[in-house]
Amino acid sequence: MIIDIHGHYTTAPKALEMWRNRQIAGIKNPSEMPKASELQIGDDELRESIESNQLRLMRERGLDLTIFSPRASFMAHHIGDFQVSSTWAAICNELCYRVSQLFPDHFVPAAMLPQSPGVDVATCIPELVRCVEEYGNVAINLNPDPSGGHWTSPPLSDRYWYPIYEKMVEYDIPAMIHVSTSCNACFHTTGAHYLNADTTAFMQCLTSDLFRDFPTLRFVIPHGGGAVPYHWGRFRGLAQELKKPLLKDHLLNNVFFDTCVYHQPGIDLLTRVIPVDNILFASEMIGAVRGIDPETGNYFDDTKRYIEAAHIDADERYQIYEGNARRVYPRLDAALKTKGV
Amino acid sequence: MIIDIHGHYTTAPKALEMWRNRQIAGIKNPSEMPKASELQIGDDELRESIESNQLRLMRERGLDLTIFSPRASFMAHHIGDFQVSSTWAAICNELCYRVSQLFPDHFVPAAMLPQSPGVDVATCIPELVRCVEEYGNVAINLNPDPSGGHWTSPPLSDRYWYPIYEKMVEYDIPAMIHVSTSCNACFHTTGAHYLNADTTAFMQCLTSDLFRDFPTLRFVIPHGGGAVPYHWGRFRGLAQELKKPLLKDHLLNNVFFDTCVYHQPGIDLLTRVIPVDNILFASEMIGAVRGIDPETGNYFDDTKRYIEAAHIDADERYQIYEGNARRVYPRLDAALKTKGV
Repeated sequence: MIIDIHGHYTTAPKALEMWRNRQIAGIKNPSEMPKASELQIGDDELRESIESNQLRLMRERGLDLTIFSPRASFMAHHIGDFQVSSTWAAICNELCYRVSQLFPDHFVPAAMLPQSPGVDVATCIPELVRCVEEYGNVAINLNPDPSGGHWTSPPLSDRYWYPIYEKMVEYDIPAMIHVSTSCNACFHTTGAHYLNADTTAFMQCLTSDLFRDFPTLRFVIPHGGGAVPYHWGRFRGLAQELKKPLLKDHLLNNVFFDTCVYHQPGIDLLTRVIPVDNILFASEMIGAVRGIDPETGNYFDDTKRYIEAAHIDADERYQIYEGNARRVYPRLDAALKTKGV
Repeated sequence: MIIDIHGHYTTAPKALEMWRNRQIAGIKNPSEMPKASELQIGDDELRESIESNQLRLMRERGLDLTIFSPRASFMAHHIGDFQVSSTWAAICNELCYRVSQLFPDHFVPAAMLPQSPGVDVATCIPELVRCVEEYGNVAINLNPDPSGGHWTSPPLSDRYWYPIYEKMVEYDIPAMIHVSTSCNACFHTTGAHYLNADTTAFMQCLTSDLFRDFPTLRFVIPHGGGAVPYHWGRFRGLAQELKKPLLKDHLLNNVFFDTCVYHQPGIDLLTRVIPVDNILFASEMIGAVRGIDPETGNYFDDTKRYIEAAHIDADERYQIYEGNARRVYPRLDAALKTKGV
């Protein structure tokens, strides 16, 4: 079984974006603010948007199951206040839930949170609870920078974030640490902000003792861990400099990397440097890089090809494709076992 | 000949830091502001600080020459106003110049600029001119984020930066794109901010047509290019998505990467992915990672060992060690030729 732990609903029907644009307009002109109930998307539309896109590519590539969350760049937690984020998160999470109900063998939902810059993260708990208890979400996406490129929140090691962590530990769900659109002109969203956030989050964990407070807390760092595996020696050396334990003891019981690295040499480095238990298969398709690589004739984001060609054995490949995901996402494992899978 | 293009004066006599602390105190209490002339460091002290540190390690490792600039984390352009940065830059650049005069066979200076957030970069030109014309500097360090982690300046492709580029083109000198200390609690200076800035700068170049305006402008992206080589497929795909030319045509006549990557797998990826003409030998010793790697028994930052072990041939190794540096830093090449080297 091949589980893609990093998929976003990037292909939602156009009505979603139109509703969101009306909501954004409504921030300035409250009379224009739409009700959530004004967004109407039928099951046929959802089915079509998935079958012709993600599911088509999953079948072509031989992927079985995707952990599916709202479009990351559309979370845009910097827009509006908590109420705006709250309504928007509820709508987006409901759509991913409906996709998981329409295609129960292929999609399992993960939730975005109604984060808002400067707002107590405890306000996110009701949506988190609803997504886990009512919608069967197996993970959350946690945005370490809800300001969208201004980095005004405290580091992930700060107690500011602890209410979320306490709930994650209670439910035994991991968080993918994933920023959204950059509204800082310095940072291209998918070419700089995403990768920077991955590196930043890892270093925030490294300099802290967060996992001493939460020994079972689990973070998935997407996009192959940003710059981290390429600079693994630097990070090992910095940990040593800071008198921290070896990274394998200090972080690798709690921090995992996905395989959203869009060329063979990158995946080869990842599998050479990071222990196989900490690597989770993912493609983030249909996402930032949708084209075909002229050097290979294959899609850049067809990451299964790179894993197939990597110098790892069958058991390691099984761990990356399935075993690690079942371990890091226990609610996914439980759901699969309920179905006898 | 082995040229290390990335060295900072991290081992300057303590008097320098003490003077700087007085300067910082003087920002709030002008009566405490020291004069530049109150900093007195003798040649013997400079000699000792180099001979027992950088030069000792250069000899041990077999490095011949270092392009030597003021300590990056001490630039701290976010502290004080332009006058504070101006006085500080002049002091630091003079010390590197004196080191180059004391050890003319081993150190060639590169300049920091008196940048200050929000200030017209044309104010940096007099110091740049002085460093090139009087001190024989062969390059500058350009800080893309003088705010120290708040990223309040425009991207490097913005006309804001053009006065510097015009002078660089006139003098035919490259800039290393190098941030300084982070004063944003989210970003660890050497573990996140440095690498993020490298990735960010590269993406700012990618999304723009800067090198159409300045076809001979040259940027060196330090720390192995941040996350860029590891995600080379992503960047090739993003360029394609943005209808830009192939990266080799769009950027690689103007953008170069150093080898400050502190483990063998990272250097192997770098040399596999990036054309050899775009890789410049560097170690940034004595810098962020000063320890010995317990996995190898060698210094993390002894990057020559990784280049020696990389799968490249003798000519490629020559280009990385010397040939490319002579091409990218023409004033270095000219200075060496004057000496018959």
